[in-house]
Amino acid sequence: MSQPDRSFHVARRGLLRHVAALATAGGVGDALAQGGSAAPALPLPVPASMQTPGAPVGTKLYGEPSPFESKVVRNVAPKLPQYISASSRTPLQDLDGIITPNGLFYERHHGGIPTIDPASHRLALHGLVKTPLLFTVDELRRFPSVTTIHFLECSGNPSYKKPFGKTASDIMGLVSCAEWTGVALKTLLEEAGLLPGARWVVAEGADAAGMTRSVPLDKCLDDALIVYSQNGERLRPEQGYPVRLLLPGFEGNMSVKWLRRLKVVDAPVHSREETAKYTDLLPDGTARQFTFTMEAKSIITAPSGGQRIASPGFVEIRGLAWSGRGKIARVDVSVDGGRNWTEATLHDPVLSRALTRFTLPWRWDGAPTILQSRAVDESGYVQPDFSELLSARGENSFYHNNAVQPWRVAASGEVSNANA
Amino acid sequence: MSQPDRSFHVARRGLLRHVAALATAGGVGDALAQGGSAAPALPLPVPASMQTPGAPVGTKLYGEPSPFESKVVRNVAPKLPQYISASSRTPLQDLDGIITPNGLFYERHHGGIPTIDPASHRLALHGLVKTPLLFTVDELRRFPSVTTIHFLECSGNPSYKKPFGKTASDIMGLVSCAEWTGVALKTLLEEAGLLPGARWVVAEGADAAGMTRSVPLDKCLDDALIVYSQNGERLRPEQGYPVRLLLPGFEGNMSVKWLRRLKVVDAPVHSREETAKYTDLLPDGTARQFTFTMEAKSIITAPSGGQRIASPGFVEIRGLAWSGRGKIARVDVSVDGGRNWTEATLHDPVLSRALTRFTLPWRWDGAPTILQSRAVDESGYVQPDFSELLSARGENSFYHNNAVQPWRVAASGEVSNANA
Repeated sequence: MSQPDRSFHVARRGLLRHVAALATAGGVGDALAQGGSAAPALPLPVPASMQTPGAPVGTKLYGEPSPFESKVVRNVAPKLPQYISASSRTPLQDLDGIITPNGLFYERHHGGIPTIDPASHRLALHGLVKTPLLFTVDELRRFPSVTTIHFLECSGNPSYKKPFGKTASDIMGLVSCAEWTGVALKTLLEEAGLLPGARWVVAEGADAAGMTRSVPLDKCLDDALIVYSQNGERLRPEQGYPVRLLLPGFEGNMSVKWLRRLKVVDAPVHSREETAKYTDLLPDGTARQFTFTMEAKSIITAPSGGQRIASPGFVEIRGLAWSGRGKIARVDVSVDGGRNWTEATLHDPVLSRALTRFTLPWRWDGAPTILQSRAVDESGYVQPDFSELLSARGENSFYHNNAVQPWRVAASGEVSNANA
Repeated sequence: MSQPDRSFHVARRGLLRHVAALATAGGVGDALAQGGSAAPALPLPVPASMQTPGAPVGTKLYGEPSPFESKVVRNVAPKLPQYISASSRTPLQDLDGIITPNGLFYERHHGGIPTIDPASHRLALHGLVKTPLLFTVDELRRFPSVTTIHFLECSGNPSYKKPFGKTASDIMGLVSCAEWTGVALKTLLEEAGLLPGARWVVAEGADAAGMTRSVPLDKCLDDALIVYSQNGERLRPEQGYPVRLLLPGFEGNMSVKWLRRLKVVDAPVHSREETAKYTDLLPDGTARQFTFTMEAKSIITAPSGGQRIASPGFVEIRGLAWSGRGKIARVDVSVDGGRNWTEATLHDPVLSRALTRFTLPWRWDGAPTILQSRAVDESGYVQPDFSELLSARGENSFYHNNAVQPWRVAASGEVSNANA
């Protein structure tokens, strides 16, 4: 939990001015008045919800959000032609904590969302193994299970080029975090038995794209999972139902969904998605291939683009940080356009390769300024500015933009993207 | 993550017999054959999902489970007349990990589910305070935020009397666990300022039951929260939208939903739900009142009632344990009707007043037996047998049954409630 710093009490006195002190006369009588008969009457009318029975239990056997939250949905670009190779983004600025609810987890599909009957689905494990194996979903569930919380992020998050978007979701909504349950890929590989020469594992999805990626064997023997559950329940269709690969900290497209095949080989297959796509073109015309790891990144989610600070006074700056290399070690926040930086509070649990929530109490004086956050992970890696990325990679790069995101605060309290 | 014990490798050889080894001839050609040309062809036909485009992104802006999971819903008793004071249960036996998805979180309402517009909702804080305060939801969100993972459980979970039900959900489905975000009640009480004589806080809900409970001030100044988000998104209507009280480790009904009023007083108000209900009648005719804490409890969720072990051999026994007093310290499992007990593996994260996942590898020999689990919390408290509860409390008790739950395994592999 947050450890309020010394600025907190000062800042909070700013907030109190905007909370209504109760009037000491008038209003509805106090049914609870006892043991304190001097208590004032409450200006708190009995609402309609107390005067009529509510909806019965079981009205919805699988529950849904309040109709008043109907705008908190996945964010699809307005001009997107609903093509099958496309994405939707998590509404980061509307969420709290580190768990992304399954209904709002970001999507990135290369051939649309297949409908797969788990009873007929099979996963093959073959290639350089002693005993090729074919698993039903029930058989996979019978193996020892592992549960772990990790983020998943598209390597195209955020865009390297304009337009960058307005909200935290527009800009960096291709990241989400969940509690995953499955079987360690290591367990299955041990079951099959590796043959000499095994160096890579090729994963293939059962979607129309036949999504295929090569994964180094070291990762497969480390923390790779074959996942069947997300946030307690079975995977959603758009997250790979009934089984997907999960490679913690690696770019999201490698965690192949609707997984049907794992082939152990001696060299990568150079599939479409690791040659034509998901490589990084450098200024000299060469391309970096197999840039798996998502480097340290952070974003302030409140106040953030499209929001408005209601009034000067206390503001809790809230954000998310994450790193594909392990745990977040610290997050620094600047409220003056990068001149000074203050260490934010990291909220428990701080988990390896998971979203981590940070906060910093701030007293906004009403003047225009720029807010930004900068993550440092346990390897010592520091999130760069965009100018640093540009000088290292040039204009042709596309993936793996992990630059600091600045937000502009206007005197009106309106917050906007300082990069736009 | 699980640390497999020595029995694991032995047991796993039992599982392998039920996983199909791939045939070495016939089937579809191997498009990935390279760097291993001796690889056999795969008996893995190309499924329909690879031959037609899938559904486009954004088909559902708020996602839903696969239609193949349509039976994984909240469990409402078949003869329930859909009365507004009723409950629905979490399908524990179908879930993994420790997070309960919001759509499957258990329900217990006393006046039905109200529909509340957050823009018009107010929370009053008054009574023995220096400055009575009235908060909008936005004002509550502006205070420093706390995020924490806790279980919630009805004190009537499970029933003390027959019929006990068949499945883990029937028996113990009035418990769930989520990541909650809100403001510490301590923060609001400090903002208002306590007056001399303050000892209790009375919480009132804006539902048709006017649900009212008295909470000791110590709890309010410790870990009590005013919660607005659950698993990242805003509270669902059936969980108290737009704001609820959360009292970690206390019986669920005290975490008053649709919270509209907190009155600081010198003594409990003895509301209906702490006199006529939620008290524990003892053999001598007196009743225990204010039995707040949910004691240590556990249940094996797989294999559990209504499930069937597919075949002798490796079985991972999986379950959940929790305690209102703090962290789970250990869980022991018996696979022989209680004669011998083996310590199970606790899976990270082990959090205070949260569900904790445990597993134990087991090799089922095909003979009938009884499985049970017994939790011990960090206070040293040991989950009792039902006979111990009966001898202490007699036949008239109803709430706070935390007895060990035994499952009977038949030679057919069918699992049933050994108490039924």
